[in-house]
Amino acid sequence: MDKPTVLLHLDTDPHPSVFDRVVAVDSGVQHLFSYGGVKPDAVMPLVHGCIFTRGKKDLMRTAVFVGGSDVAAGETVLAEVRKHLMPMFGLSVSVMLDSNGANTTAAAAVVAAGRHIDLSSANSLVLGATGPVGQRAARLLAAAGGHVRIASRQKERAEAVAAGIRKQVPKANVEAVAAGGGDAEDALDERNIVIAAGAPGVMMLPAKHRIACDTLRVAIDLNGVPPAGIEGVELNDQATNRDDCWCYGALGVGGTKMKIHKAAVKALFTRSDAVFDIEQIYDLAKEIG
Amino acid sequence: MDKPTVLLHLDTDPHPSVFDRVVAVDSGVQHLFSYGGVKPDAVMPLVHGCIFTRGKKDLMRTAVFVGGSDVAAGETVLAEVRKHLMPMFGLSVSVMLDSNGANTTAAAAVVAAGRHIDLSSANSLVLGATGPVGQRAARLLAAAGGHVRIASRQKERAEAVAAGIRKQVPKANVEAVAAGGGDAEDALDERNIVIAAGAPGVMMLPAKHRIACDTLRVAIDLNGVPPAGIEGVELNDQATNRDDCWCYGALGVGGTKMKIHKAAVKALFTRSDAVFDIEQIYDLAKEIG
Amino acid sequence: MDKPTVLLHLDTDPHPSVFDRVVAVDSGVQHLFSYGGVKPDAVMPLVHGCIFTRGKKDLMRTAVFVGGSDVAAGETVLAEVRKHLMPMFGLSVSVMLDSNGANTTAAAAVVAAGRHIDLSSANSLVLGATGPVGQRAARLLAAAGGHVRIASRQKERAEAVAAGIRKQVPKANVEAVAAGGGDAEDALDERNIVIAAGAPGVMMLPAKHRIACDTLRVAIDLNGVPPAGIEGVELNDQATNRDDCWCYGALGVGGTKMKIHKAAVKALFTRSDAVFDIEQIYDLAKEIG
Repeated sequence: MDKPTVLLHLDTDPHPSVFDRVVAVDSGVQHLFSYGGVKPDAVMPLVHGCIFTRGKKDLMRTAVFVGGSDVAAGETVLAEVRKHLMPMFGLSVSVMLDSNGANTTAAAAVVAAGRHIDLSSANSLVLGATGPVGQRAARLLAAAGGHVRIASRQKERAEAVAAGIRKQVPKANVEAVAAGGGDAEDALDERNIVIAAGAPGVMMLPAKHRIACDTLRVAIDLNGVPPAGIEGVELNDQATNRDDCWCYGALGVGGTKMKIHKAAVKALFTRSDAVFDIEQIYDLAKEIG
Repeated sequence: MDKPTVLLHLDTDPHPSVFDRVVAVDSGVQHLFSYGGVKPDAVMPLVHGCIFTRGKKDLMRTAVFVGGSDVAAGETVLAEVRKHLMPMFGLSVSVMLDSNGANTTAAAAVVAAGRHIDLSSANSLVLGATGPVGQRAARLLAAAGGHVRIASRQKERAEAVAAGIRKQVPKANVEAVAAGGGDAEDALDERNIVIAAGAPGVMMLPAKHRIACDTLRVAIDLNGVPPAGIEGVELNDQATNRDDCWCYGALGVGGTKMKIHKAAVKALFTRSDAVFDIEQIYDLAKEIG
Repeated sequence: MDKPTVLLHLDTDPHPSVFDRVVAVDSGVQHLFSYGGVKPDAVMPLVHGCIFTRGKKDLMRTAVFVGGSDVAAGETVLAEVRKHLMPMFGLSVSVMLDSNGANTTAAAAVVAAGRHIDLSSANSLVLGATGPVGQRAARLLAAAGGHVRIASRQKERAEAVAAGIRKQVPKANVEAVAAGGGDAEDALDERNIVIAAGAPGVMMLPAKHRIACDTLRVAIDLNGVPPAGIEGVELNDQATNRDDCWCYGALGVGGTKMKIHKAAVKALFTRSDAVFDIEQIYDLAKEIG
């Protein structure tokens, strides 16, 4: 009989996320080992417990999920997990990062945009692009080939993000701009896509600017707490046409995000050497539409 | 296929109760997510993880159980859980409180008494009525319609409990008395039922007073640590007739308590909007006898 | 239907061991309740939650596993667990100690030695015999009837271990020696078996001494971190013949250790009153070979 599937769930918050746990069991995980308050120096024995307990052919039935509200902390834990895997000896398990849902949310937003316009030639604007979701969405849009404006209220912070993306995606065509404080008129110029990924409860783009922008085809607001980040877009909008623009709200993107999240957890158990970070999760997201 | 059942177990003690966990899995819970040291300010994301992960038709397969040795702390956590449910949007799960087993124990004791006498016309005495089990037993007896003496060694504490019950049960016919220190002769006058719910190891009612009380039909001692709270009643008494009175000890009530506990956990998964606190647990207890 | 199997996993480290958890579910455990940072004063309610929740005939479907990196702390927790079981009333569950894998590792090493030589008449040397694995291996070898040299770099520490074994195994034929610092020539004299159980990364026995010892038949190095504890023995050696001596490295013993570990966890659920400490685990190890 097959060994049961085990998901090692490493969460950087004191109480491991119930959200991620429910999604894990709904994805078919049989035994979920959740740890809260995980710091990098605690990771080694936890990972060794995964790779030294099952034979190589059964290692694909063990996997690691890194979560928690702090995306930077999650990235550090992911790096530490990878450090203690030994794929050169076949001693490895697949691992996924989705701290704060940042990877699945960014992937869902970009997949939604790609339903309405060819991303390889689209002009995009990402508002709140210095946060974890915004950075990831901008990186995916740039990798798809279009021109991407990276916006932050402080231009130097946007510049830093743009520089980072140029390193990760050499062909990236990105430009840093100062925007997101409620005036997005210039930043929207010739844009086909706008994604608002700012802090909850901040209105970043007034309706009049959105409506005045003739080229705009897709507006995605990832803010789940009123007021909307993009004025006039509603929480439940899901390809809702407003003023000749396809609009998505946080809950409208949420259904796709959930599908991606579950598909990624399931995919962890199909091999023992996968790392699901933003690119891999986006590739999967494109497959499932 | 049905989604697996998930019980979110929030315990106010550092280590979540093994007792409650075994009962949960013996009630058929498939995935038990137990959290220890839960404080009110940690509750919101835990509850959101329940209501935002499953579609409305599947929400009845997620539920919340609040436990721990501190009943007041559990009540605060229950209130916080309810604050973050959103039944108006159909985003709700059922929730049960049984900190320190207080609800299931009080319900079991009153159900046991009701097997031998009509509670709507019975005269009762609750010794140690200021503790969580005593308060709940007194409230159920008062709601059933009989006359209830609320006893504490300090009469003013008994008065406070009586006042609280009169608020919750407007028709309550309750009277505060000073008793429980080993002399219960006056308090027992014309009583048909006595329930001792005091601190472990304190003898509250001497055998001679119990035997001298001609009207007494039921004596229930919830104290599990010798000496007995009601002298002469044994731990394993379960409808044991002593001196023409039906006697129950802590273990004798325990079997009924366990049945009620399991039935309540199972009932959580039959709907998504139930709150199982003392009244609802007692209603269920009456159904299963 | 049978009640599900429940393993209460008490770990003295802050994060309960993933290794022990994977082995538990691979042994068929259905519900694994893992607790980290367990201190003796927290044990009573955890054990009571095991013995007061199921009827006597179902108690064999609940068991306790004590683990963690600190063997002495585990022994204290095991003693506390046993204190709160009530086998005289039939209120008991089986319990196993395997902190740091010490019991299963020592049993696996001695079983491996016994495949090649009659332990009742063998002369053994245990290097690093004051650590938890070394002490246990020495005790098992002494109980089997052979002559055992207990080695530590500090002879007085070896004497203390020898004295302890003489108390536990009255017929023990043991001798304390100073060895393990890299010169084992005298200590090896007339030995048939050597087991190195010292701290990781310390070379305790040079190859030239091992090769020069004509009587040596079995060399087992339990050190998993290079350099080898016994020079020339490799991590993966498993009955590998080197210089007319059967050699085992840490990974070579690991397969047997894992089989013993799983068999012991399964055996916990065949009765409700077993205590699996080193002797019982070794008895089981001999059965499964």
